[in-house]
This record gives sequence, C-alpha cells and structure tokens, in this order.
Amino acid sequence: MPAYAPVDGSRLAGALAEIPAVRDRLGGDVVGWRIREVGDGNLNLVFIVEGRASGVVVKQALPYVRLVGESWPLPLERSWFEYSALVEQARHAPGLTPAVFHFDRGQAMIVMEYLSPHVIMRKGLIRGVEYPRFAAAIAEFLAATLFKTSVLAGTAAEHKARVELFAPNVALCKITEDLIFTDPYREALLNRWTSPYLDAQKRAFERDSALKIAAQQRKYQFMTSAQALIHGDLHTGSIMLTREDMRVIDPEFAFVGPIGFDVGAVIGNLFLAFFAQEGHEPEPGARDAYRIWILAQVADVWSGFHDRFLELWRAAPQGDAYPVSLFASDEDRAALEKERARFMRALFEDTLGFAGAKMIRRILGLAHVEDLEAIADPERRARCEAKALRLARELMVGARGFSGPADVISAARTIGRA
Amino acid sequence: MPAYAPVDGSRLAGALAEIPAVRDRLGGDVVGWRIREVGDGNLNLVFIVEGRASGVVVKQALPYVRLVGESWPLPLERSWFEYSALVEQARHAPGLTPAVFHFDRGQAMIVMEYLSPHVIMRKGLIRGVEYPRFAAAIAEFLAATLFKTSVLAGTAAEHKARVELFAPNVALCKITEDLIFTDPYREALLNRWTSPYLDAQKRAFERDSALKIAAQQRKYQFMTSAQALIHGDLHTGSIMLTREDMRVIDPEFAFVGPIGFDVGAVIGNLFLAFFAQEGHEPEPGARDAYRIWILAQVADVWSGFHDRFLELWRAAPQGDAYPVSLFASDEDRAALEKERARFMRALFEDTLGFAGAKMIRRILGLAHVEDLEAIADPERRARCEAKALRLARELMVGARGFSGPADVISAARTIGRA
Repeated sequence: MPAYAPVDGSRLAGALAEIPAVRDRLGGDVVGWRIREVGDGNLNLVFIVEGRASGVVVKQALPYVRLVGESWPLPLERSWFEYSALVEQARHAPGLTPAVFHFDRGQAMIVMEYLSPHVIMRKGLIRGVEYPRFAAAIAEFLAATLFKTSVLAGTAAEHKARVELFAPNVALCKITEDLIFTDPYREALLNRWTSPYLDAQKRAFERDSALKIAAQQRKYQFMTSAQALIHGDLHTGSIMLTREDMRVIDPEFAFVGPIGFDVGAVIGNLFLAFFAQEGHEPEPGARDAYRIWILAQVADVWSGFHDRFLELWRAAPQGDAYPVSLFASDEDRAALEKERARFMRALFEDTLGFAGAKMIRRILGLAHVEDLEAIADPERRARCEAKALRLARELMVGARGFSGPADVISAARTIGRA
Repeated sequence: MPAYAPVDGSRLAGALAEIPAVRDRLGGDVVGWRIREVGDGNLNLVFIVEGRASGVVVKQALPYVRLVGESWPLPLERSWFEYSALVEQARHAPGLTPAVFHFDRGQAMIVMEYLSPHVIMRKGLIRGVEYPRFAAAIAEFLAATLFKTSVLAGTAAEHKARVELFAPNVALCKITEDLIFTDPYREALLNRWTSPYLDAQKRAFERDSALKIAAQQRKYQFMTSAQALIHGDLHTGSIMLTREDMRVIDPEFAFVGPIGFDVGAVIGNLFLAFFAQEGHEPEPGARDAYRIWILAQVADVWSGFHDRFLELWRAAPQGDAYPVSLFASDEDRAALEKERARFMRALFEDTLGFAGAKMIRRILGLAHVEDLEAIADPERRARCEAKALRLARELMVGARGFSGPADVISAARTIGRA
C-alpha cells in the first residue's frame, strides 16, 4: 500500500480512472475530466471532478488543521470515522447523505457523489433563500439516524460495537470539548471576536459563573452520554440543498454521544442565521419575511424531529431499552407514553443547551460562521452578534424555563427587535 | 499457544511451577502444594493452591454460565476484562484488590493472591460479624476507582481508551441488562421466588407500571451513561475481609458505566443483609445490635464515598471536565462547589435506584443470595424478602423523595419493624 500523500490534483484523474466505480460514474475520456480544488472548510482537501456523465467529490484528510496550519496536527483516521458514519447514516436515512463510491483508508480519502446544483445551506441563508423541503428532510435525518443508532431501537451488542468503533475518534471530539465548551469562556490564544464592540461581552462571559457551570455540564454530558451515533458537527455548513433535495455531509466528528448535540447544532445555527439577517438586509425590515421563515424552520425542525422520533419509537419492536413486552396493559402503555414524553422533554432541554453553546463558540471562539463574518461593518456585525449571545446565554442557563419551541422563538424575536 | 482447556486440577501444580512468579510465591517443593477447587460462584472454576510459603488463587473462566450449564454460553474473554479491571483498580485503590501474579489470556486464567484468613463478606453478615474497617475501606475503593477513571480526574483520551477497551464486554453487561433490569418484572423462565408466599408480590411487580418504568430508566442509564470504569458486580459476595483488611474481587462485569451502579450494589446488599437478620436470629431481637451496625454501615459507606469523592475532585488538577482553570474567582469557586453538590445528589439518587434494582433481582430473579437462601423456613424467608422488596420499590420509584442516607435508613428501620 503506498504511503499517505496529499492528493496531487494533476495526477488525480489518472488515479480515479483506475477505480471502476468512479470511472463509470464520471464517464467518457479521462482527459476530458475537469478537476478543481474547492476545500473551503477548516480541515481537509476537497476536489470536484466532473466528467461527461456526472461528477464526484474527492475529500482527503490532511494531517493537520487546515484553518490553523501544520502546527496543529490532526489524525488522518478521521476519514475512517467519516466514512463509517456515512455508511451507517445512509442505512438509516437513505437519500439524505451523499452516496459513497470509494474509500481509501490509507490515503484517508473518500470519493463520493458530487451534489449539484446543491448549495451549502449557510450561503443560502445569507442570501435569504427559502428551502421548502429543508425542515422535513433534516427532521427525518435527525430522527432516523439518532433513533436507529440508539438502544431504543437496537440491541446493546450493536450499540457497544458502535461505541467501540467510534471511541478512537478522540482528536475530533477534543476539538469540540476545547473549542465549544471551554475556550470561549476563558482567555485562549485562538479566540477572536468583533473587537472592541464585544470586548465587554467577552469579559462578562469569562466572569459568568452560572454560564460557565452550564457549559461544563454540557461538556460532561458530551463526554459521558452515549445515546446514539451523532454527526457531531451538524451546522448549516454541513447541509447542502436545493429547493427539492437536502443532504447532510461531513460527519468526521461522528461518535456515540448525546442526541441533543446534533439537534442543537441545527437549531443554534438557524438562530445565528436569524440574528445575522440584520446585517444582510439593505434597509431595516427588508428581511422580515425571511426572519419569519427562519423561525418557522426552528419550530418545524423540532416538531418534525420530535414527532418522527416518537413515531419510530412507538413502532420499534426490538429495542433493548424499554422493551415493548414489558408494557402490555393499558396502564403500562399509558405509563410508557408518559415516560416517552419525559424523555423527549429532556432531549428538548439538551437541544437548547447545546444550541446555545454552538452559538457562543461561533462568536467568541476560534471558528466563526460566514452568516456573521460576511457582515463587513464590524459595528453592525457586533450588534447582530450581541443579540445572538443574549439568546444563547438564555438557552444555556435557562433551558428548563422554556416551555416549548414557541417560547424559544418568542424569546429570539424579542431579542431580535431590541 | 495451546488451545483453551478447563484446568485439570491434577496437572495444575506442574503448570504453575513453570511460572516463576507463582512458583516463588508458593515456595518449597511442588509435590507439597495442596490444591482444591472451591468455585462456589455462578460463572467460573476457582482453585486454591497452597504451598509452603503462601497460597495463590487460580481463577479460570468457563465457556458457559456455571449456574445454568452449557446451554448458556459465555465468552472466555470476560477473564481479560476482569484482569484489565484488576490492574486499573490496583493503580487507583492500592491494597484493596488481590495482587495479580499471572494472566493467561488464551486459557482465560488469572493467578492471584490467596486472601487468608479473609471471608466472603456475605457469610460474615449471615453470622453477624462486625468488620470495623469495612465502611472506610469500601468507601475508599468506590471513591478512588470511580473518581479516578472519570473525566473529572483524567483526560478525554484516557477515558475513551477505557471505553474502547471494555466496550466488547457485551455478554456480561447483557446478563445485568436482562437479569437485573428486565426479567424480575415479567414472566421469565429463569425467575424464581419463595413460592407461594411471594406469588402475589411477584405478580404485583409485573403489573406495577411505575416500577417497571423506573427499572427501564435505570437500564437505559446502565446502557448509555459512560461515567467511570465500574466493577459492575459489587455485591457483598465480591468483598472479602477480616477485621483488619478488605479486598474487592471478581470485576469481570467491569465496563465504563454509571457510578451509582457500584455504590448502589454495596448499599442494596447491605439492606438485603439487614432484612435477612430476622431469619438468622435465634429469638426476635437477638440481632438488634447487629441490625444497628449494618444500618450504620449504609450511612458510613455513603458518607465515606461522598466525602472522599469530593475530596479527590477538589484536589484534582487535570480533569478535562470542569477544568479548574475556568473557575478562578470566589464566585466561580462557590458556583463550582454548588455544582459538585448537585452532582453528588444525582449520584445519591442513582445509588438508591440501582440499590433497589439489585435487591429485587435477588428475590424475584434468577440469582439469589445466601443471606436469604440460608433461611430454611420458606415462610420466615418470605417475610424477610417481602420487607426487602418493599424498601427496594421505594428506592426505585421514590429515589428523589429521600433527603439523605438517614432518611433511607429510617425507612428501612420502619419496614423492618413492621
């Protein structure tokens, strides 16, 4: 097996031509294939290869964090975890991830479906584009992948096999532990924020004992709660869509963790997009209709996830936890239904807490989001960010106080108008 | 490597003589070594080998459950998990486990210290023997092994390595999942109870929706909460002691699970011993002083564990969760201390819930305990068992209602007098 080497774009076509599944997919003569490097993420090399018939994406892990440089090494094996997660997700949520054509563990390289004319959702949110199928599709993805990789759906043996498979994905989990749950709340070299406008806010968060405790409670949960195989990085940059189709990409942070972390990632990033609208509208109020659309997505994502997760649970015949055979009488079934409601309520609070943590790290930590970065005027950007921070703190410290999604949305609207 | 074969007692001396560490430990001439099979547990072959200098125990896994027979296969690899747990526990709680002299993974065989004149604690509890050092020693074992294998003490990388190492211990966890959390609450072939006296109680538990929900909540927690490397079977048959010394043996059920499961196992088995006294005393009240001693142990085990766990936490400089560096101000430290109290309160409730589950399975499930089985008169035994079941149900359904150990002990005393 040849040693790992970063893909050389000029030789890529020749290498791909030797993989029958990929050659057939691209079609036509190798010399006609067009290749371009498009990686704009933080961690990897990404090439798009287009042939006569269709295109593929070649994603290769680099042995360091691309955003930071070679000083921050990162294991190539994350590609194996991404591949393993893609395979598992496709089983549970067919059609909602890119098809995988080839995986080379030694080269840390995945060749997969080129999604076109899909765009990264975050870019659509910045432009104010509505995606009518988004909420239902992401709710299905969340409910199907998270329910079906849990002990509510399957056996303990299957679950422990997943735990074992993904446990070595230490380095990527560590990024989350540090950059999401810890660094934003302290002085850390890699933090940045819109200075000087948010300086006071940043310092206030560093001194906010209640907020820091809430962040550490979530970190502890992230490190010890093995509920389901989670995507681990499900922000709106990991969602590609058109008006008709939606796919979830990039699950290299996958491991067996808390369900609310994925649901919270989606909802937290929708709230970031909501607060960013103020920075993108030509005159105040121009994006009001779009704001309403975004907040409707928050409600629809939660209720879609909630309803579908429960539907799957009620229909699951063979989960090792809460076995159906134990709850046969009317009274039993009523008690089980009440327990399911308690379980979903706990997931709701987890979702809010993790959503808040994901929002804060994008404003006060290392990795920011284009929704806000694209607002050129720093004062204007900081205004959006300060509002997002306010909601995020409420979500983290006060998750228990929110009666449901309508309540959260109302809080976001109030803060947005301030 | 020779294929696995059950130890042939007549050839054991020759085999041990070839292991220098064991030969030296036993001392003298091989022909003088005395060997006897003493396995009275449910799963394994156990030999005691005594030489001129001292003795060793040879424990070998059998490929099936000894209690049931060859129809119930069980992986030999549990010996590897037991060995791995013994090594890790010895690091964190030195002197509180048997020393290991030799491990043969292929033969699923551990050669370890022969503890003499130690007795199995359960037998001492039946005879009414007080062990003045027990509570402090088991509290230290629990606090040290459970704290130091958690992310409160160490890094996420260390924790994930432990999770990965023990995740394949599927079969033994499955025994717990089925026999503790599920079967006692339904009709299952292997259940047994003191019939006909407990028939009504058994049927009532099968119809008790609230209790079954509580049992499944604990099962879900057992399957998904990766807090620390737990012993997994820490009843009073896994504790050997004298008046001066205490050791914890037999951690073959070890895996990364909920902390309260181990603490609850100890406390639940103390309560079983408490309720069994009525079956062992020659006349009513003869064991009153011993009852008081047992209940004092419950209080001392919890408070000893609680205080030592917190002491270790306050002194831990490098745990990845709740990093000290984040909590530097007076206000921070007060908030962290409050959070620690919340964490310990959650462990207390977990402890009660798991204690209740462990008690019920010993009365209505497959594997019973000598404390109760040794009561020859079934009506008298059932009287003890019914009281134990009453407390156990309260612990499982009403864990939140108990303000502290004194409250639980008072409930036990009230039920005991009834």
